[in-house]
Formats: sequence, structure tokens, C-alpha cells
Amino acid sequence: MASFADITDQLAGQAIELPSWAFGNSGTRFKVFSTPGTPRSVEEKIADAAQVHAATGLAPKVALHIPWDQVDDFAALGRYAEDHGVTLGTINSNTFQDDAYKFGSLTHVDETIRRKAIEHHFTCVDVMDATGSRDLKIWLADGTNYAGQGDIRGRQDRLADSLRQIYDRLGPEQRMVLEYKFFEPAFYHTDVPDWGTSYAHVSALGDKAMVCLDTGHHAPGTNIEFIVAQLLRLGKLGSFDFNSRYYADDDLIVGSADPFQLFRILYEVIRGGGFGPGSDVAFMLDQCHNVEDKIPGQIRSVLNVQEMTARALLVDHDALAKAQADGDVLGANGLIMDAFYTDVRPDLAAWRESRGLPGDPMHAYAVSGYQRTIETDRVGGRQAGWGA
Amino acid sequence: MASFADITDQLAGQAIELPSWAFGNSGTRFKVFSTPGTPRSVEEKIADAAQVHAATGLAPKVALHIPWDQVDDFAALGRYAEDHGVTLGTINSNTFQDDAYKFGSLTHVDETIRRKAIEHHFTCVDVMDATGSRDLKIWLADGTNYAGQGDIRGRQDRLADSLRQIYDRLGPEQRMVLEYKFFEPAFYHTDVPDWGTSYAHVSALGDKAMVCLDTGHHAPGTNIEFIVAQLLRLGKLGSFDFNSRYYADDDLIVGSADPFQLFRILYEVIRGGGFGPGSDVAFMLDQCHNVEDKIPGQIRSVLNVQEMTARALLVDHDALAKAQADGDVLGANGLIMDAFYTDVRPDLAAWRESRGLPGDPMHAYAVSGYQRTIETDRVGGRQAGWGA
Amino acid sequence: MASFADITDQLAGQAIELPSWAFGNSGTRFKVFSTPGTPRSVEEKIADAAQVHAATGLAPKVALHIPWDQVDDFAALGRYAEDHGVTLGTINSNTFQDDAYKFGSLTHVDETIRRKAIEHHFTCVDVMDATGSRDLKIWLADGTNYAGQGDIRGRQDRLADSLRQIYDRLGPEQRMVLEYKFFEPAFYHTDVPDWGTSYAHVSALGDKAMVCLDTGHHAPGTNIEFIVAQLLRLGKLGSFDFNSRYYADDDLIVGSADPFQLFRILYEVIRGGGFGPGSDVAFMLDQCHNVEDKIPGQIRSVLNVQEMTARALLVDHDALAKAQADGDVLGANGLIMDAFYTDVRPDLAAWRESRGLPGDPMHAYAVSGYQRTIETDRVGGRQAGWGA
Amino acid sequence: MASFADITDQLAGQAIELPSWAFGNSGTRFKVFSTPGTPRSVEEKIADAAQVHAATGLAPKVALHIPWDQVDDFAALGRYAEDHGVTLGTINSNTFQDDAYKFGSLTHVDETIRRKAIEHHFTCVDVMDATGSRDLKIWLADGTNYAGQGDIRGRQDRLADSLRQIYDRLGPEQRMVLEYKFFEPAFYHTDVPDWGTSYAHVSALGDKAMVCLDTGHHAPGTNIEFIVAQLLRLGKLGSFDFNSRYYADDDLIVGSADPFQLFRILYEVIRGGGFGPGSDVAFMLDQCHNVEDKIPGQIRSVLNVQEMTARALLVDHDALAKAQADGDVLGANGLIMDAFYTDVRPDLAAWRESRGLPGDPMHAYAVSGYQRTIETDRVGGRQAGWGA
Repeated sequence: MASFADITDQLAGQAIELPSWAFGNSGTRFKVFSTPGTPRSVEEKIADAAQVHAATGLAPKVALHIPWDQVDDFAALGRYAEDHGVTLGTINSNTFQDDAYKFGSLTHVDETIRRKAIEHHFTCVDVMDATGSRDLKIWLADGTNYAGQGDIRGRQDRLADSLRQIYDRLGPEQRMVLEYKFFEPAFYHTDVPDWGTSYAHVSALGDKAMVCLDTGHHAPGTNIEFIVAQLLRLGKLGSFDFNSRYYADDDLIVGSADPFQLFRILYEVIRGGGFGPGSDVAFMLDQCHNVEDKIPGQIRSVLNVQEMTARALLVDHDALAKAQADGDVLGANGLIMDAFYTDVRPDLAAWRESRGLPGDPMHAYAVSGYQRTIETDRVGGRQAGWGA
Repeated sequence: MASFADITDQLAGQAIELPSWAFGNSGTRFKVFSTPGTPRSVEEKIADAAQVHAATGLAPKVALHIPWDQVDDFAALGRYAEDHGVTLGTINSNTFQDDAYKFGSLTHVDETIRRKAIEHHFTCVDVMDATGSRDLKIWLADGTNYAGQGDIRGRQDRLADSLRQIYDRLGPEQRMVLEYKFFEPAFYHTDVPDWGTSYAHVSALGDKAMVCLDTGHHAPGTNIEFIVAQLLRLGKLGSFDFNSRYYADDDLIVGSADPFQLFRILYEVIRGGGFGPGSDVAFMLDQCHNVEDKIPGQIRSVLNVQEMTARALLVDHDALAKAQADGDVLGANGLIMDAFYTDVRPDLAAWRESRGLPGDPMHAYAVSGYQRTIETDRVGGRQAGWGA
Repeated sequence: MASFADITDQLAGQAIELPSWAFGNSGTRFKVFSTPGTPRSVEEKIADAAQVHAATGLAPKVALHIPWDQVDDFAALGRYAEDHGVTLGTINSNTFQDDAYKFGSLTHVDETIRRKAIEHHFTCVDVMDATGSRDLKIWLADGTNYAGQGDIRGRQDRLADSLRQIYDRLGPEQRMVLEYKFFEPAFYHTDVPDWGTSYAHVSALGDKAMVCLDTGHHAPGTNIEFIVAQLLRLGKLGSFDFNSRYYADDDLIVGSADPFQLFRILYEVIRGGGFGPGSDVAFMLDQCHNVEDKIPGQIRSVLNVQEMTARALLVDHDALAKAQADGDVLGANGLIMDAFYTDVRPDLAAWRESRGLPGDPMHAYAVSGYQRTIETDRVGGRQAGWGA
Repeated sequence: MASFADITDQLAGQAIELPSWAFGNSGTRFKVFSTPGTPRSVEEKIADAAQVHAATGLAPKVALHIPWDQVDDFAALGRYAEDHGVTLGTINSNTFQDDAYKFGSLTHVDETIRRKAIEHHFTCVDVMDATGSRDLKIWLADGTNYAGQGDIRGRQDRLADSLRQIYDRLGPEQRMVLEYKFFEPAFYHTDVPDWGTSYAHVSALGDKAMVCLDTGHHAPGTNIEFIVAQLLRLGKLGSFDFNSRYYADDDLIVGSADPFQLFRILYEVIRGGGFGPGSDVAFMLDQCHNVEDKIPGQIRSVLNVQEMTARALLVDHDALAKAQADGDVLGANGLIMDAFYTDVRPDLAAWRESRGLPGDPMHAYAVSGYQRTIETDRVGGRQAGWGA
């Protein structure tokens, strides 16, 4: 097994993008609980995200959601972010909350509505031009609830056309990442339900279109690390939305439901060349902190990714390759488990301190007083959530 | 196979309770779409429910949800319902939308909050006294999102105590039905996740406590008709919440996702004595009409239950018992499929007309002008939904 | 809705290939039950398959499995089949029962074993040359049981190379169909787990390589008709392995577990141009009759496909398209359900008789005396199963 | 968090029973691979099991399967075991491999066959009398593959009667543990599919009947630790069959698929009083080593259980209870994760050595020469498997 000292250079380059909406309220269809100190504006979300980066050194970018984070002057917003030590990242479109999109957006049978959805994405590209963002992330809520409600095949054809129009609007340094999702909010079919569908579309589009893999968007039992390996092999893994799940798209803290799965995913990322300076794969969180505190929830999440990355980097690749070649099942598995079970937390704490960061970022945030300050200061106004 | 004439007496006694909340708006955590004509009050919900009964003769009762349907004078509400040709049915409690219940209600570790939740159920029993309702239905959102967040064992013990207090408040003709749910809104554990847990609690309570089976609240692949057969055998099947699902608790129209499953469930209901005048099992819908029209959605639903009940009643039990005894797998299955594939719709239409009902209730509602009237009349006010 | 007379021309062209192994014994890892009359040779399997075609007119081809059905003279076997009224169809390779393949075949890290597996496929192509079969079907048992046991990425690269070598051996009229499977017999990862992986490989190979969709090889909840629609759109749906499932790869009689799903699949097949003289999609059964009689089990299966095809052909496409365009959810779904609930069996029986076939093929077989004859005659020898 | 020294007394009492059949060959319906050195007799299985105990000190008992392990003189077999340092444990019945049981055993509609199955269990009790075993474990393969094939309700009633007859045969110190299984080998319904069914039966029987929980026998997503907590609360958790799964009943090495789940299960065992001298809960493995070596596979398995038990014992209960009471979601979860992520392996190694055991049991076995010896010696004869 590698030593911790061998892997610090690789760890030093790690960056995990935070979603602005993780700092607003979220919940289920049954209830959205509000919490003191929740941001009322995109600026307050960015300020909170900056706390995560300050405590961990892991989260230099903040992803925006349009229209939730719409502002008049994105250049100014970018400067605001930089003043807080972070930059603006991926732009996420939203075609699921306007009444017009009840039966679809980029797949809609009505050309007027489909046009509206396409143009929303043009607006998002305009935002990218203003913010300097590289990635336009498209997650579609499109789908149907009943057999026959829509024409599955026709919707695919319209989707292909819509994506083509958006793709053609991208600048030379910009990318589109197309997310897939097994179900929800549609309950009979979704128009991009699996990686195969996303892959078929982005392959047809060209080099600037890539797949986005959300770790919570698969059928029960799906081997996600296989998809990671496959997409890297095909050159089409664009980005991750990290979170975790026990049942559906639970959007829990990444690594909380199945830490070993997160380890296996990161192992295949590294194995396939998806980690490090030579890779364009974007790592992002996409979670809901329904019952836990939001800022420490994000700190815990990026630490989980860092800790698992460290474990995955420790795997002794040469010994593993030999055991695999020898058909030594227990030996090969043992090498993987050995890295997984290694407690990297003390080494990481010491290394963080050597870089001027808190050894225990959770504790550092807790004693920083920031939480008390925002709970005191952010009185009045409307707390941010998914609807605003 | 039985003839249709043989089963009409049994069909004539069928009654399916409607949930008041099916007439309000519902949706997902991403969006609740509003629709013209949606009720603004419990009275308007009851008026809509009465349309379903008028069109089908199948839905004489309306279930209420407290506090969504709270009124000052439930006796007056009962008279209002009777004036519209229906009566008030099951009372559903709600301990999932008050901020106090963020970490539980009947299971809460804080005795003050647990007391509040228990007393809410006392209030519900008061409502039952006023409405003459037989059943108090308890669906708990209680659960946790992360391992360790709560003490699973301690929560069970407190749940048992809370249920006991509520049970002891029931009148001699009143019942408690305890619903179970696999997941949502909690994503790590729920406090009543399966029929076994509900059964263990209601068995400990006594004869007036029964299990409520919601057809959408099971793990993927669960054989629901087995549970029906088992609970009937154990004398503990209290009621159904009908709906259907492809993935999670999709709350789609009953019978829409897997008609054959609905048939099998109803077959076991009949086989086990759960249908007909000698049975106390309550049949109720619990659905969300997120994208389809609500009143015809409910009409379609009760018709689906009626049609499948008719098919299940047609099964030739004697021939089936013989094929089963002979180990004639294909023969036995063939008898089941023969009933399922029989198109009972023409016979049902003729029979409805013979009873003074429309042969085609969907069409009858569509041409009744009711929908246009409510869309015109119900302007202003706040449309009903889960939050109000 | 179309009338039955409108669809008979389309039904007349339907052909469903039978797997030779369905007539041998099969079971689970716990037990394979033997049954009187089970074939001892490929010739006896073909004779049994011919009974299915004689009774239904639906099953003119028999698929072979190599080496289970290996004979010295395949040309003679082809003549034997023709003498019985059927022809030889798809050739299925087998790289999962030789001790050499314990850790893989076309993906094996050991070049000697990988070479052996590739050459087995060359042998299969030789068989195809002798039988005139069009399709080589590859289902791989390759995979691993433990994380780290194999190198997922390296296995994909070797798989691509192996498939390329096999593909290059195909004649101009021959095709390769690559089957995917979610799990079993491997329990951590399989090397072709999903349609996306199969699609990525066959797309890289060329026009003669297509995807094979086995209806039992998906994760719980997967919308299979979506995959059908997508693969037809991409021009890469090669063939079906029909069966049905409640849980895993149960290999039950097609249409027995979820008849509505079979209907929806066939609807998308027709919608996407996969049915009829202009289509190259092959329809085949792949089932296990563990507890039911094999020949009537196959008769029941092809009838199920025929009945559901008839229902799917009855859908009123114009009315459906209008309802979809109008956002009439209940109307559109109603048109689909109307076709599904139509009892086509009487019309099919009359139509069969008009073509010189038995109106009730199950009954015709039962009274034919064939079963008694084979039970009497097939004494001694070794009953066919998966191992022989 | 507790220190390792605090928990060694508790660890010292841990015992995990080994299944004799884990040392024979196993596989899937597709193939059973044979391996050099596989036992040909129950004595050789016991000898192998004794190696696991010698290397770990964790596995003092061997469970037998009747008739696989049938011998003429069980008293002599018991002495043979003791000579090897182990004792005979749970007796497992088998009513799934005789042709008579094709359509059921304890549930069979034919009284002759049901009688035969009951009497097989009487034979097993006779074996228990001879071996001094406490537990009779009943896993039923009973179930059906098609709707209508059997009468679900009637089968339950017969099952209850059969279990009663067997229960009444138990001696005062003997117990029956009734295992449940979601599916396989039956694919439509199983007669004991879930813990609720097992619990209903054993509750009706009496104090000597308990539930057996096999960790691989649940629907996807099931929260198993909840069931553990519930059964302990109800006083009805009799025993565990440990293994792990990604998909179905994969029977992989315990802890290999989801180590965190194993940890959570053991945490609830300890929390609920199921571990330690005051508990009667039996811990047993039930696994298949299809592709890995069997003896080290068993060593790895008992070590996994030991390591996870150690982690679970380390949890700081007082701090956890406080965080739970405070609604401190991240704090409570953090206390659980802190114990899980603690690398207990070095402390365990040192502690083993202090007790005269090898610090690294996997290595100790590998260099012991035992494997080479059995591969050399065990030539000829018939290797043990599920059929013999």
C-alpha cells in the first residue's frame, strides 16, 4: 500500500464544486423545514459556500441555478464571489417550475413551449459568458406518469433537436453536461433515464457534450463504479453530482449511506484517469440538507469525498494487478479492503494543518461563530429554497 | 368461470372511500402545478367527491385530513356531505407539517413534543365523535435520514406507548388503523416501515387496532397479495389505501401501473373473506393527481377497482382448487388469467345503466358541465393543497 | 380503435423463435427437477419444438446452443428440422461452463483463455455457415463477485478486442447480437450489465452488430419499453429474449408476471418500426420451465406474445396522437388501456381456425396424445439439461 | 469513544458458527466449479472448519445439514468434532431436493407429502438429540412460480399446522428457528417471505420458536438493522445467517458488499442486548464460496464479523444519546461514523497474539501448508456439494 506522503500531491489538487441551492431550504413533498440563518439571496449563499472552502480548502467553486440565482449583473456577482475567496462554476438550467412545462420542456410536443425551453438554455449560455463558467448542466424533469401520456419515441427525437440547438450555441471553451435520472418527478418514464440515453445523445452532439453522473439517479443495485469506468473509457464522463441514497434520489450527504460504494467509485475514477491535472471531470455536490445544518453538512460532504479519495489513492496497484492476474480472489479483494479500512483521518488532519487549514474543519466551523452571526443577522426577507 | 350475472349482487355492495385531499393540488418536491377549478375549502372538496359518487355509485364516503380539513362545526359538515349524497369517513391525522415534528412525533425523544402529537390524535378522536367516523388512520412520517440520528429501539418503545394512549381514547365502535411505509419522507429508517411492524403494534394494542395497507408503500418486488392473505388470516387487515407505483410511492391512479397486480390483490381479498357484507375491511383511495384532472382521475380509479373486483369474482374457484391439488401449474394459472383477460366492461356498463347510473361514467362527467362550472366559479381564494 | 379484421395481415407475419433448451430440464441452484418425456438429444428437442409450431403457426424456428446442441452434421440436422416443419435459427455461444472460464472468457486477463473463448465463437460461426443461421447471440457470464477481483476497465478493453475479432469473422449476411444482463452468475459486476454497454460495443463494431434485449435482465423498476424505443431509434435493436420476472432473472413464461408490461413493450416495438416485414428484429423466447410442462409452456408463451401483439396493434394511433398533443392525460392513457383490456382471444381463435390451425392450441396439444407418447418412448438415456 | 482495552472482554466471548456446506462446492444454476482439496465427507468438512477456529478462535461450532451430512453415528461424529477442537451446532433441515417436494413440503396440499416433510423434521430432532444441538433451523424453499399455482392462504394454514407438529416434538432445551426469504427458488411467492410472516408463526408457537434472520434474504433497500432492533425488542430474534449481497441472495462473504451495513446491524444487536453472555442469539455464517477459496473465505468472514463487532462496541453511547436528544443530526451521525472509520485491525492483531492466536489469521493459514496437504490427499471420491 502507498504511504500517505505519496499521495499528498494528488490530494492537493482536489476541488469539489458546491451547489448554491444546498444553502437554501429543501425538503420533501410533505414539508420543507426552515432553519435560522438560511440565506435570502445568492450573495448570502455564496458567503456560506465560502465558509466551506475556508474550512477545508476543497471547495473553490459555487454552481448557480437559473433562475433561482438570477441577478442583473453576473460580472459583479463574480467579483463578489472572488472577494469571498471562491469563483462561480457550473450553470444549471431549470425547466421544471414554470407552468408551461407541466408536460415537458425540451421534449414538449408544442413547439412554442419547446422553443421557450431552448431559449432558457440560451439565456444560461449568456450567463456562462458573463461568469466565465465552463459547464452548462442540463437536468430534465421531462417525462410522463402514465403509459400513453406521451409518445416516448417522438419525445426523444425532439430532445435530440433541442439539444443540438443548445449545443450549437456553446462557445469553443464551453461544454454541455447532460444528466440522467431513473425517475422523479416523472413516475412512468423519464426522457433521460440512464447513462446509455445520455451517452447516445452526447455522442451524437460532439466533443463538447458529456454525461453528468448523479450518484443518486440509478435503479436499485446498480453498479455505479462500472458506469464510471465505462464512461471514462468512452471519453464521455463530464461531471459528477455527488450525494447518497438508501432508496430513491434521497440526496443525502455523499458517503453517508454506503461509504464503500463512494470508495469504489473514486477508485475507478482514479483508475480511469478521471482524477488529477490531466482530467476535465468536474466533481460537484448535489444534496439536500433537509434535517441537518447546511454549512456543516457541506463541510462534512467535501471531507467525505477527500477521505475516500485518499483511501482510493492508497491502493497498491501493482500488487492488485498481480493478484488479479493470478486469480487470487481473496488477495485482490483484500488489497482493496485494506485501503478502504485504513484510517486516513489523522494523516489528513496533520496535512491540513501543514497547509494552514484547520485540522478538524467541522470543529473549526462550529467554534467560528459564523452560524450564530447569520442566525442573528438574517432576520426578515424570504429564505431561499427551490422555488426562489 | 362464473357468469357476470352471478356476481352482480356482490358488486352492488362495493364502496370505495375517497380522500378529500385528492381534489386539492399535489405534486413533487420540485413543483406543485395548480389547476383551474381546484377547491378552496373542504366543502368544495366534498362537492367534487360527490360528483364521483354520482357518476359511479361506488364512492359514498369522503375521508378527511386533520388539520387540512379542520372546520368549526363537523356536525354541520356532515350534514353538508349528506346533502350532497355522501358521508364523512376515515379521519386521518397529520404530525408531519408542524416545525415541532422535524425529528419525530409519536416517537419523539422530547416528551413535550410527543405529548403534542398524542393530543393531536385525541383531537382527531373528538372529530370522529362529531362525524361518526369509525376509523382513525395513522400514517407517521417519523424516521431518520442518517445512521445514529435517532435510537431506533427507543423510538419503537415510545411509539408503543403513544399508540397505547391513543388506543385507550377510542370509543367502543371506533378503530385505529396503523399504516406502514417503506421510506419517504425519511430516508434512512422509518418507524413503521413494514407490515410486520404495524402488525406487532396493533396485536399488542387489541381488537380495535388494525393494519392499513397502502399499495404503494413496499420495497421493489414485494408480493403485496401475500401480505393481504396473511393479514386476513391473522384477522388484522383493517383498510387499504389504493394507488399504484412504478418506482417509489408514486401515488398514481390505482391499477394504472400494474393492472394484474391489482387483480391479484383483489383475488386474495375475496379469497380471504375481506370483501362483502361480512367484512370490516375498508377500501380507500390515496392518490395524487399531479398532472391529470382530479375528478375524472378519481372516477377512473374507482372504476378500475370495480372492474378488477369483477374479474376477480369471476374466477372459477372449484376448478382452480382442483388444478392446484393436481399440480397442474399451467391449468391453475390459466384459470386465473382467463378471468383477468375477460373484458367485463360491457357487462358493467349495462349493469350500471340498469341501476340508473351512467354506463360510461367518464363520459357522463365530461359532458356534465361540472368541470366548466367550477373553473368559472372558483376564482380567487387559495386552492387547497397539502399545506392547507 | 382498430378492428380485429384490420390487423390480421400484420399478425399473419409474426414468428417467434424457440430455444432448444426450453425443452430440456432446468431449475435453480437448489434443484433441477426431471420430468417424464424430456428430450435426450437435440433431435428430440426439435421434434418437441415442432409441436409448438404445429399447434400455433407462430414458431417456425429453433435456436441452438453450442455445445449443448453440438452434432457432427449440422446440415443433416437442418434437414431433420425441415422434415418436422421448422428451421434452425440463432446460434448461441456458451463460455460459462468450462472450468477455464471461472474468471472470465472474452474478458479474461489470460490470453490463452481469451483465445479459447474467441475460437469457440469462430466455431459457432462455422455452425452458422452450416445451418444458414443469420444471428450469433453472445451472452456472457463474465463478471466478478468481489470489488477488486478484476480490473473493470481492462476487462472492457479486452472485451472490445475479442468482439472485434469475432465480428470480423462474420459473413456478409450474418449478424452478432450482444446480450446484456444486470447480474447473475456474477454478483459484484458483470461485463455487459446494461443496454448502454452493449450499445457502445456494437456501435463501435459496425452495422452487423446489434443489441439483444432479454426482458428479464434489468434492474428493478426499469422501464423496458423505453429501451426498446431508444434502441429502435438508434437502429440497434437486434433481437429479443422474451420471458418474465418478479424479482431477478426468473425466466418465467413471457407475459405471466406483468402482462401490461409485455403489452407496452410490444406497443413500442410497433411504434418504432420493429414489427413487420420491414424489420430485422428477431423475437425469441428464453425461458425456464422449472415446474410446469415444457411443450405447453412454450405454446402458452407464444400465444401470450401473439395476444399482446394483437392488443398493441389495436391502439388507435391517430386518436392517441391527438390526446397527447392536447395534454389529455386521462384520454391518452385511456386509449392505451382500452386496447389492453380488449379480449382478443375469441377473434384470435376464429382467425386461427380460418387458417387451418386449432382455435385453442393448448387444448389441441393436450388431446393430441403427443405428451403420452414421449413419456412412454423416451425411457433411458440422459435427459437434456443445461449441462448437456 | 471507548478504548480498545474496554471492549476486549466482550470480544473474547464472541462465537460464530460455521456451516458445513461452506466447505463443499457451490455455484449458480449455470455452473458449479470444483476445486482441489474439497471435502468428500462430513468428517473432512469438520476438519476444514476446525482450521478456521484454530486460526481465529472465533468459530467453535459447525452446523450440519440433513441429509447432506447424514451419518450413521452422530455421537461418534460429535466426538470426531471434539477431537478437532470444535463441536456440532445447529441442525438444518432440507425439504427442497426430493422430487416429492416440487410443489411444496410443509405447505403441500397433498397430506402424504406434507407428512413426509414433517417426519423429516422429526428425524432432524432425533439428530439434535444425538448431537446435543440446541437449534433446529428451518428454511423452506416452498412457494410458487405463477399466480394461481397454489392457494396462498391454504398454504399458510397448512404451514402453521406443520410447524406446530414439529414444535411439539422439541425437547425442553431445544429451539426451532424459522428463516424467511424474499424469493428463490420460488419466483412468484414464497411461503415465508418476510420477518413478519416468520414472527407471526413463531409467536403462535411459543417460547421455543424464534426468527432466523439471513442478511441476504430481503427486498432491495430493506433496512435490516431495523428488523434486528424490532425482533430483539419483541424477544424473537433467534439467530443470524450472515452473508452479503449486491442484488439477490448472492451469498457473498459477510461484510464484503456493504461493510457499513454490517456495522449498523451489529450496532443494533449490541444496543438491543443481542450480544454477550446474557443473549441466546446465535451467530452463524451461510455463504457460498463459488469462486474464492473456501477455508480462507470462512476465515475472512469471521474476521469481518469480529472487526465490525469491535467497531460497534467502540461507539460512545452516552455522547450519542446526548446528540440524539439534542437533535444534533451531524453530531450523532459523526459519532457512529467515527467508530466505523476507526481501524481496529492493529489492536485486534495484538490482542489475538496475546491470547496465543495468530495476529494475521489469513497469513497463518496460507503458510500452514494445510491447503497443499488436502489438495494432495483428497484425490478420488466425490467432492461434497449441495446435492450430496
